[in-house]
Amino acid sequence: MPLTIEGAAVLHQMFRLRRTAWRALPEAGRAAAIAGTGAQLEAWSASSEGRQSVAYAVLGHKCDLLLIHLRRDFRELAEAQAAVANSGLGDYLEPVSSFASVVEMSLHDATVNVYSSLAERGIEPHTEEWKGEVESMLARQRQALAPRLWPEIPESEYVCFYPMSRKRGENVNWYLEPLQARQQMMLEHGVVGRRYADDVKQIITGSIGLDDWEWGVDLFGEDPLIFKKLVYEMRFDRVSAAFAEFGSFYIGARVEPAQLAAIL
Amino acid sequence: MPLTIEGAAVLHQMFRLRRTAWRALPEAGRAAAIAGTGAQLEAWSASSEGRQSVAYAVLGHKCDLLLIHLRRDFRELAEAQAAVANSGLGDYLEPVSSFASVVEMSLHDATVNVYSSLAERGIEPHTEEWKGEVESMLARQRQALAPRLWPEIPESEYVCFYPMSRKRGENVNWYLEPLQARQQMMLEHGVVGRRYADDVKQIITGSIGLDDWEWGVDLFGEDPLIFKKLVYEMRFDRVSAAFAEFGSFYIGARVEPAQLAAIL
Amino acid sequence: MPLTIEGAAVLHQMFRLRRTAWRALPEAGRAAAIAGTGAQLEAWSASSEGRQSVAYAVLGHKCDLLLIHLRRDFRELAEAQAAVANSGLGDYLEPVSSFASVVEMSLHDATVNVYSSLAERGIEPHTEEWKGEVESMLARQRQALAPRLWPEIPESEYVCFYPMSRKRGENVNWYLEPLQARQQMMLEHGVVGRRYADDVKQIITGSIGLDDWEWGVDLFGEDPLIFKKLVYEMRFDRVSAAFAEFGSFYIGARVEPAQLAAIL
Amino acid sequence: MPLTIEGAAVLHQMFRLRRTAWRALPEAGRAAAIAGTGAQLEAWSASSEGRQSVAYAVLGHKCDLLLIHLRRDFRELAEAQAAVANSGLGDYLEPVSSFASVVEMSLHDATVNVYSSLAERGIEPHTEEWKGEVESMLARQRQALAPRLWPEIPESEYVCFYPMSRKRGENVNWYLEPLQARQQMMLEHGVVGRRYADDVKQIITGSIGLDDWEWGVDLFGEDPLIFKKLVYEMRFDRVSAAFAEFGSFYIGARVEPAQLAAIL
Amino acid sequence: MPLTIEGAAVLHQMFRLRRTAWRALPEAGRAAAIAGTGAQLEAWSASSEGRQSVAYAVLGHKCDLLLIHLRRDFRELAEAQAAVANSGLGDYLEPVSSFASVVEMSLHDATVNVYSSLAERGIEPHTEEWKGEVESMLARQRQALAPRLWPEIPESEYVCFYPMSRKRGENVNWYLEPLQARQQMMLEHGVVGRRYADDVKQIITGSIGLDDWEWGVDLFGEDPLIFKKLVYEMRFDRVSAAFAEFGSFYIGARVEPAQLAAIL
Repeated sequence: MPLTIEGAAVLHQMFRLRRTAWRALPEAGRAAAIAGTGAQLEAWSASSEGRQSVAYAVLGHKCDLLLIHLRRDFRELAEAQAAVANSGLGDYLEPVSSFASVVEMSLHDATVNVYSSLAERGIEPHTEEWKGEVESMLARQRQALAPRLWPEIPESEYVCFYPMSRKRGENVNWYLEPLQARQQMMLEHGVVGRRYADDVKQIITGSIGLDDWEWGVDLFGEDPLIFKKLVYEMRFDRVSAAFAEFGSFYIGARVEPAQLAAIL
Repeated sequence: MPLTIEGAAVLHQMFRLRRTAWRALPEAGRAAAIAGTGAQLEAWSASSEGRQSVAYAVLGHKCDLLLIHLRRDFRELAEAQAAVANSGLGDYLEPVSSFASVVEMSLHDATVNVYSSLAERGIEPHTEEWKGEVESMLARQRQALAPRLWPEIPESEYVCFYPMSRKRGENVNWYLEPLQARQQMMLEHGVVGRRYADDVKQIITGSIGLDDWEWGVDLFGEDPLIFKKLVYEMRFDRVSAAFAEFGSFYIGARVEPAQLAAIL
Repeated sequence: MPLTIEGAAVLHQMFRLRRTAWRALPEAGRAAAIAGTGAQLEAWSASSEGRQSVAYAVLGHKCDLLLIHLRRDFRELAEAQAAVANSGLGDYLEPVSSFASVVEMSLHDATVNVYSSLAERGIEPHTEEWKGEVESMLARQRQALAPRLWPEIPESEYVCFYPMSRKRGENVNWYLEPLQARQQMMLEHGVVGRRYADDVKQIITGSIGLDDWEWGVDLFGEDPLIFKKLVYEMRFDRVSAAFAEFGSFYIGARVEPAQLAAIL
Repeated sequence: MPLTIEGAAVLHQMFRLRRTAWRALPEAGRAAAIAGTGAQLEAWSASSEGRQSVAYAVLGHKCDLLLIHLRRDFRELAEAQAAVANSGLGDYLEPVSSFASVVEMSLHDATVNVYSSLAERGIEPHTEEWKGEVESMLARQRQALAPRLWPEIPESEYVCFYPMSRKRGENVNWYLEPLQARQQMMLEHGVVGRRYADDVKQIITGSIGLDDWEWGVDLFGEDPLIFKKLVYEMRFDRVSAAFAEFGSFYIGARVEPAQLAAIL
Repeated sequence: MPLTIEGAAVLHQMFRLRRTAWRALPEAGRAAAIAGTGAQLEAWSASSEGRQSVAYAVLGHKCDLLLIHLRRDFRELAEAQAAVANSGLGDYLEPVSSFASVVEMSLHDATVNVYSSLAERGIEPHTEEWKGEVESMLARQRQALAPRLWPEIPESEYVCFYPMSRKRGENVNWYLEPLQARQQMMLEHGVVGRRYADDVKQIITGSIGLDDWEWGVDLFGEDPLIFKKLVYEMRFDRVSAAFAEFGSFYIGARVEPAQLAAIL
């Protein structure tokens, strides 16, 4: 198992507008509802100590509105969920999907290194000394990588969100591959990702034990076409070709709180 | 087949609030509905002779409210289900999922031991003598393990519930593995679980013949992050990597009966 | 292919109460509706020449009410279905699942015997003589096994119903196993079932060509715990471990027609 | 690829009665609605130049009403679909499933013969001469088999409809089997079918490129029990055992237009 | 990975008419709603610089109306989606499915050629020079193939739309096949397609990273029967037989904006 470090707790909420009820609402009621939720989203729009919420209008029928919430912990996520439900639009937004996860960095390289070094020094796994050394490596990494663990949502116009898992088939099973083989495959995968770094920012979150898929991927860019190119090229990486299982893909265009009226 | 002993009958109920009908209800009606169901939950909140019910507010769209009922038997579970449906909130809670099971302990080690010992003594399987010896071993275990068979729901703030089954693939099939191999894999699995024992309490229930998955797992802890770490580490155990199939994961935060109004 | 003999035509109906409409009905209307359907169920409650209908209240969210109808043929099943729909509760019961099948006994042993005997006597398959011999064997079996082909529904408090099929995988395929191998596996399977004969009665129905699964299994007993023990033990039989695919499991508690009001 | 010839365009429509709206309709409105749709079905009830529509009341919860439409082409099917929607019952029938296909005969034998003969004569595939020979073989077959390409729906009381596909697994893949092997398997399959020819009439339609499954099968007989026997026996044919994947099975009892009131 | 060039952004929208609400609307309201949406579709009906929208009435229950939108980019697609939702029929059309993609041409041959030529010239992959050469090849192809990248929707009466993916099984995995093997299979696949070129026009769009399937296929012709013949013949191509996974098939008949009233 690669050691991981975690940062912001994340909730993706997919809502469909209850169109019939919404249209039955008088114009003033609709304006008030939009104003209420808009003010809430406005208050959350700037990233502050790892807290931020951003809205996207989604292409196609899967949902109308996607909210991405980053928070310090899960209690704050529950508060954000309740605040949306109780805001003006809450009665008109039907939750049709969601994804609970946490910003995660897998330390494949650092894990291999620290385990080798501890083994060379003859320190037994899971002893207090061993745990101390591992924990202090993790603490150093958490500090060094804090900006990526507590990211700001890029201002890009488009987001592409999809959940994924690693295959556990009868013959092809990620969790039965040796750590070094997984490390090597992730390295090659990272090389492809870095080629797109100028055009696509990404936030990777882990959801094992939290939701039905194992990871969530958010890509941010100025044109969905670049998502296609990146994901297509990656599909030929060994780790994706052989081991990736994908959920639904959501393509959304960023909606500033003041623009909420325009999309409803 | 490992011998098992069973304790409390358990029902998980997942409800979604019928929001439109709920909001259409006058304030006084809502208060009365909450008070009625709240009083019912209050009466069930303390663990008493294996009976207890606890409510959780669930993160994401899968449901709004999760109730976990522990009872002496299935008749009492049906009564609890009816009582919830007939309580104040009953008309406003749509059952969207559920899970019926029973607290179960698999006695892999004791099974291997008693079968070896009976074989050494030349006692034929399924004879009266054989059945008597097996049954008295089970009775001893039931008494020794009573506190775990009739558990109290931990007071932890968070629960993680998920159902699971063992794979019966064409080549990889748990039920065709030798008992000793299964015993060994469960042992290793238990070692990982015990490393988390300070932070995560668990209740394992069996549902073969009772519901659509074979087991239900409830993890209790103060932060969902620890669920992720535990489940992630376990995924690399051979028994999970090769043989586990998982259903949906539900993350809930405990709701005391008096707080019910706050989440609706 | 094992020869089979068939008896009662069977329909399982799973209903969810349309709760909102039901609660909107005045008390007198509800009483009349219950009385109407209750009288219908009462008239069908005693087994008579293979005809009988029994109601069960189901644990969990899958449905509220399960009706099991046994009839002389499919025309009578359609009449029963129409009678329920047109009875007092018909407008308040939403059909959410169902299962159409026929009581079936697979004659693995008798098939092997009659085919061997006909082969020894040099009788060509599918000739008139061959068909006559086979048909007269079937007729003898139908007469001898009539009580099991036209069963009475046991009075046990609990039922466990689930549909199942035999796997037709790429390597593991029940229908490509030799008849003798299937016969042997079914024999071992039967041994386990007979160990539970005092506590669990079962009705096996066939649904190939009638519904989406190949068989339906009804277990009847005084405590769902015994269903768990039986199904768990059987899961380690080769025929179940390797070849069984299961649908949803329904656990219901018997409801006498006069008790219908209590569960609605 | 076996050459095929096609006849009637076919649409299966599965409807559920919108029961709440239907019951809310005054008696006179219901009578008018039934009379309108009944007249439409009456006009379509006799087979005329390949055009015919027949209604069936379906057992179980999958739908209430099954309509089978045979037409000269797809434009006429669209007209029939529109006519039903616009007839009296149209507003009360919710379309819950459907199947679009065309009566198809696979000419496995004739394909092997014509290809062999063309190859012996040294005619290159896909040349004009080759296409001419193939097309004239097809024209002869279409004429000879016209009654089966433009069938009348049998008057039998019961229908069994199910869609199916041929498996394209990783190791077991119908479309990668040699043509001669497929021809041989279809021959054996046909032998079983012919044994039931007195009791079961069938209409096979192809839906590749038209709907989500590859074929649709309609069986017609006087008792659903015969469908079970036929489909069970066929399940042991190599082509079904190894290569068949089945969708939902619908069992319906024929409803004459004048009887429509009785089933609603 | 084969290099690809992209053209029009494409959105397929599948709508079901909210029949109850629609029928409740007075005749004048319905006429106004149809006129509003009809005018919008009329404005989009002629292909102009890669922009065009066309409506189809769909056979069967999957949806009532299919809209295909071609646009310059995804922002324009979002505008089209909003315009439909806000047009007269918007409140009466329930979005039940959709597909977001982009017209794509895979340059299997050109990719093999440019990579070979660059390798012969000793130019290292992913250097600036290498990227320049690849990009200028792509630019030449984009110009040469512009009419196919920015297609006009054929005027044919019928459309067949289906999404598909390439299999990533445990043993059979398109993305692990060598590029040359994939090139060869696509060549053979193209030969079959070209045999139908007189009768079937096709638009292939890519959706990796944009939607849940990898490609979308639109076939246009005067009779759905030709779709069946084409797709059936292709199913025996190695690339389809072994590697294709298909979603739902939609068969639609073109609806001119002025005819909208006739189908609602």
